[in-house]
Amino acid sequence: MLFLVRMDVKIPHDLPAAQADEIKAREKKYSQDLQRDGRWRHIWRVVGEYANYSVFDVQSNDELHQLLSQLPLFPYMDIHVTPLANHPSAIVQEGAPG
Amino acid sequence: MLFLVRMDVKIPHDLPAAQADEIKAREKKYSQDLQRDGRWRHIWRVVGEYANYSVFDVQSNDELHQLLSQLPLFPYMDIHVTPLANHPSAIVQEGAPG
Amino acid sequence: MLFLVRMDVKIPHDLPAAQADEIKAREKKYSQDLQRDGRWRHIWRVVGEYANYSVFDVQSNDELHQLLSQLPLFPYMDIHVTPLANHPSAIVQEGAPG
Amino acid sequence: MLFLVRMDVKIPHDLPAAQADEIKAREKKYSQDLQRDGRWRHIWRVVGEYANYSVFDVQSNDELHQLLSQLPLFPYMDIHVTPLANHPSAIVQEGAPG
Amino acid sequence: MLFLVRMDVKIPHDLPAAQADEIKAREKKYSQDLQRDGRWRHIWRVVGEYANYSVFDVQSNDELHQLLSQLPLFPYMDIHVTPLANHPSAIVQEGAPG
Amino acid sequence: MLFLVRMDVKIPHDLPAAQADEIKAREKKYSQDLQRDGRWRHIWRVVGEYANYSVFDVQSNDELHQLLSQLPLFPYMDIHVTPLANHPSAIVQEGAPG
Amino acid sequence: MLFLVRMDVKIPHDLPAAQADEIKAREKKYSQDLQRDGRWRHIWRVVGEYANYSVFDVQSNDELHQLLSQLPLFPYMDIHVTPLANHPSAIVQEGAPG
Amino acid sequence: MLFLVRMDVKIPHDLPAAQADEIKAREKKYSQDLQRDGRWRHIWRVVGEYANYSVFDVQSNDELHQLLSQLPLFPYMDIHVTPLANHPSAIVQEGAPG
Amino acid sequence: MLFLVRMDVKIPHDLPAAQADEIKAREKKYSQDLQRDGRWRHIWRVVGEYANYSVFDVQSNDELHQLLSQLPLFPYMDIHVTPLANHPSAIVQEGAPG
Amino acid sequence: MLFLVRMDVKIPHDLPAAQADEIKAREKKYSQDLQRDGRWRHIWRVVGEYANYSVFDVQSNDELHQLLSQLPLFPYMDIHVTPLANHPSAIVQEGAPG
Repeated sequence: MLFLVRMDVKIPHDLPAAQADEIKAREKKYSQDLQRDGRWRHIWRVVGEYANYSVFDVQSNDELHQLLSQLPLFPYMDIHVTPLANHPSAIVQEGAPG
Repeated sequence: MLFLVRMDVKIPHDLPAAQADEIKAREKKYSQDLQRDGRWRHIWRVVGEYANYSVFDVQSNDELHQLLSQLPLFPYMDIHVTPLANHPSAIVQEGAPG
Repeated sequence: MLFLVRMDVKIPHDLPAAQADEIKAREKKYSQDLQRDGRWRHIWRVVGEYANYSVFDVQSNDELHQLLSQLPLFPYMDIHVTPLANHPSAIVQEGAPG
Repeated sequence: MLFLVRMDVKIPHDLPAAQADEIKAREKKYSQDLQRDGRWRHIWRVVGEYANYSVFDVQSNDELHQLLSQLPLFPYMDIHVTPLANHPSAIVQEGAPG
Repeated sequence: MLFLVRMDVKIPHDLPAAQADEIKAREKKYSQDLQRDGRWRHIWRVVGEYANYSVFDVQSNDELHQLLSQLPLFPYMDIHVTPLANHPSAIVQEGAPG
Repeated sequence: MLFLVRMDVKIPHDLPAAQADEIKAREKKYSQDLQRDGRWRHIWRVVGEYANYSVFDVQSNDELHQLLSQLPLFPYMDIHVTPLANHPSAIVQEGAPG
Repeated sequence: MLFLVRMDVKIPHDLPAAQADEIKAREKKYSQDLQRDGRWRHIWRVVGEYANYSVFDVQSNDELHQLLSQLPLFPYMDIHVTPLANHPSAIVQEGAPG
Repeated sequence: MLFLVRMDVKIPHDLPAAQADEIKAREKKYSQDLQRDGRWRHIWRVVGEYANYSVFDVQSNDELHQLLSQLPLFPYMDIHVTPLANHPSAIVQEGAPG
Repeated sequence: MLFLVRMDVKIPHDLPAAQADEIKAREKKYSQDLQRDGRWRHIWRVVGEYANYSVFDVQSNDELHQLLSQLPLFPYMDIHVTPLANHPSAIVQEGAPG
Repeated sequence: MLFLVRMDVKIPHDLPAAQADEIKAREKKYSQDLQRDGRWRHIWRVVGEYANYSVFDVQSNDELHQLLSQLPLFPYMDIHVTPLANHPSAIVQEGAPG
């Protein structure tokens, strides 16, 4: 089941650089693990912004919330989730069956 | 080069049904041709709305505008385009090289 | 799996009253059938507005889109869907397991 | 009488963690007490956000404001309240009689 | 129990004048009856706009929705309802007890 | 002459509690004095929010700005003012004559 | 007493040109009469838009609403009114005393 | 003197095609004349939208309004104007001297 | 040439009072000098808000930006500029010729 | 390929002035280098605001994101990117071929 997720990162200016870098490193590893297991299908950078659009493939809302809320950067992000369905014109139906 | 495109379809209520169906049929064919040639990479339905999120892979802004403005439903849609770049955490770089 | 759905009904003024009433009757039956089978868990009227907030319990995004897009009033509604997850403070976990 | 309430939690980054955890613990207990006495009928997590949608069943606006303004997290939340009425299509009328 | 209600009137240009005047006349009578019975406590014109702010004193959300949805101009209005509670600084508590 | 005034209170988290309480006490007294002299006709709490809707009856814009800008909480509030006129349906014309 | 008023004119495309021109002619005369008697102090065109910003000098909210609601173009305009007060830095206090 | 102008074209669906094409032809000629005389410095299509961003170089606000309000498509466009000044980092100061 | 300028002042709570007062004093003098030389034609207080609407009469965009960006309060203000043109109904054309 | 980019600069008040000036100096040099090599085609100041509109000419989205994200002021800016295409009325096609 697919969800489009927009994440806008807003790290406070007064967060010590070292602390911020450590969180970002954990975020990258966390993301890449989920990409490798197929749940984080796409991640694209929004040109010019510290933000990304991602597509997740999960079995339930709860699973998605768990994945998102455990993002190391979660406390420093505005996240908006849009549930996606198969489009009647799509020649390939994406996402694991619900 | 990737672009996220949101399309909200707003067909006027007084457009004759036959005319609307004919346009939708052309739209579906147009979309599927572009999906087959790889430029229309993804098309997902926004749950509950007559809208879709799509990802296009094109060589230039002009190419994208040409594709979008020639959509049969173009006169009846609100379209918003977000340019995407490769994300440093992405384990797979998507989109044909620019 | 639960979704909060807001529906704002905007029936064109020039739609013949008989036609509008017929659609509304089908909408009511459609809704009540889904309420009886448990997928449409709640439907509340927004005070002062021709709008409702509903909670759906479905197995997938696709199932929800199918239910919503087949609403007789679908062409005359602005619909917004918010996916819900279990809240850690909830003493009762609602919704069929995903 | 039912009200839909959206709560967005915005805890300042510089609030000491221990203090934040203590407030959250009181919030959870406060919520669960009200859920048990039936006034806090539903609480759902908005997927991807530190926010919830809740449904309260109270006897008056004043009672609702009292409940909400005494939430331990109240100073750190944006809250929006939407009054709900019975929907003519609802097969079950919810909420204690006004 | 008090509610602040904003009503923006948007009568379609092509509604025959006589029909519009007839509806407005019924609206005025409807409003004045409710003002006399105390449920429509205040009605003020928003300067420069075909809109009003009103304060209603009712026993429940359902009663308010019934009053508002039966306004003759209801199909031609955008209405937004804000529930009000007693303010701790108010020297006079307004509104019939809930 | 009547004005609807919405006040959203946003006291910074790091303002010492004692200082905040002292300001609030002055605010309450200031408000109640104006309520007694009839210029602050109504003050209602917006349910769920640290905000109020008030109705002022003053002789001029300048008088209203003076009253509002001297509110002890003024530096910590977002205020929006809507000028009100008599509504043709009102059975009672409120507010001192201009 | 001064008010800043923004008027956005939205004449329906299907209003016969002759009818529109007649209304505009009345609007111009109506405006110029009020400019001559000093109540309509300023009228400026918003560059690029069928809109204006005006400053009115009136004795009361009711007087302003009367003036605005009797504008021939009133049914075809979105109007927003901002009450103005004397600014402490102004070297000239404008507007007739309240 | 430079202005950034965004124009969103919204031609009503029921405007006869021949009439629309005639207006568009006049619009193109009108624009190209102004481009040749240097006042319309840039015109770019917003990708995916029936809209453009343009840069005008004119001597005054009035001149700009005259140019814009005489656009054949003016009645069918939402236009927003942003005045531009020379940027301290610009290596080339653009626009005729004011 | 005339411009309508809205200025919303947002002085940080933790700016020392003495420093704030000193800036405000310079702001007042700066404003009054420009009022005396005719470039700052009007300054009005927005009732209830720490904001003003002003009208400037300048020879160019660059001149206006220079005046505004050198306002002592500039770093603490949100400013929005609307270019104004002569209105065809205006009986007096204001502003120095462009 | 052209992109319109709006940059709103929001430097925190508590950033030491020397540090801010150093960043701004690097920003100016960075910008002017890109202007000289043709990729930063235009940069204009938005009158009255610490913001600019710029036009970039690049070969790909990724190139643009790289240029923007390496702006010294990037952490202190809100940036929005609008992809531009050639306009059919443009007498000069701008931007290097894609």
